[in-house]
Amino acid sequence: MRDALFRAISRYSDFQRSLGVAPNILADRLDGFVSSGLMERRTAEGHPGTQDYCLTEKGRDLAPVIVALTQWGDRWAAPDGPPIIFGHCGCTGMVEQTVRCVACGATVDSADLETRAGPGSHHRGPSGTQRRP
Amino acid sequence: MRDALFRAISRYSDFQRSLGVAPNILADRLDGFVSSGLMERRTAEGHPGTQDYCLTEKGRDLAPVIVALTQWGDRWAAPDGPPIIFGHCGCTGMVEQTVRCVACGATVDSADLETRAGPGSHHRGPSGTQRRP
Repeated sequence: MRDALFRAISRYSDFQRSLGVAPNILADRLDGFVSSGLMERRTAEGHPGTQDYCLTEKGRDLAPVIVALTQWGDRWAAPDGPPIIFGHCGCTGMVEQTVRCVACGATVDSADLETRAGPGSHHRGPSGTQRRP
Repeated sequence: MRDALFRAISRYSDFQRSLGVAPNILADRLDGFVSSGLMERRTAEGHPGTQDYCLTEKGRDLAPVIVALTQWGDRWAAPDGPPIIFGHCGCTGMVEQTVRCVACGATVDSADLETRAGPGSHHRGPSGTQRRP
């Protein structure tokens, strides 16, 4: 998913070159992404016998998750510094993921996060709110 | 991890009640979180024979990843609406995860993200930059 999202890779052989995993494992993973709607198979332009694995909108929408996970890895598992940095196309800026309060605009730390029952909750508690003590 | 992060659960029996998974699977998962440094075992206060599984700083720092993943799930796999909503403690506001450019302050869409080689990169390309075409 990272290669597809940030390196614009869509061809099976390019995924294999980039990831170096066994062909059956790679095929299983790509098929899994297709069956879960994250990618779709398309005939490669100019190569009628070849199929590309292209991200769907649902797949592209995972980008913020990968950015968040990468930032966590940079803080906790990158002794030599971040291996890759996310940048803003057409700008010199680096990109960072933040958790922000929609009402007051504050950056919210994990200690200041609480969960509230949403409209799709089937186990609504008596107060509707659960927070860290 | 979600229960530990947002419901302040730390006791084995509370994880089991919340998750309803088989005891051996739950024990394996919690042990995995301990061995990867996301949780640590502590003797439960007032219960000398019981051990709690408490989040470490490394574990708490996964909160933004869970928020990002939950937002993705809310958009793509929550036909009845979000089952839970993240809120800002002591404020009426909802919390949202965003990807932002540090230089210009813009909210950055996945199509406008590029990856650049960081200091920890061992496979630095000739240009040092890879972007979506």
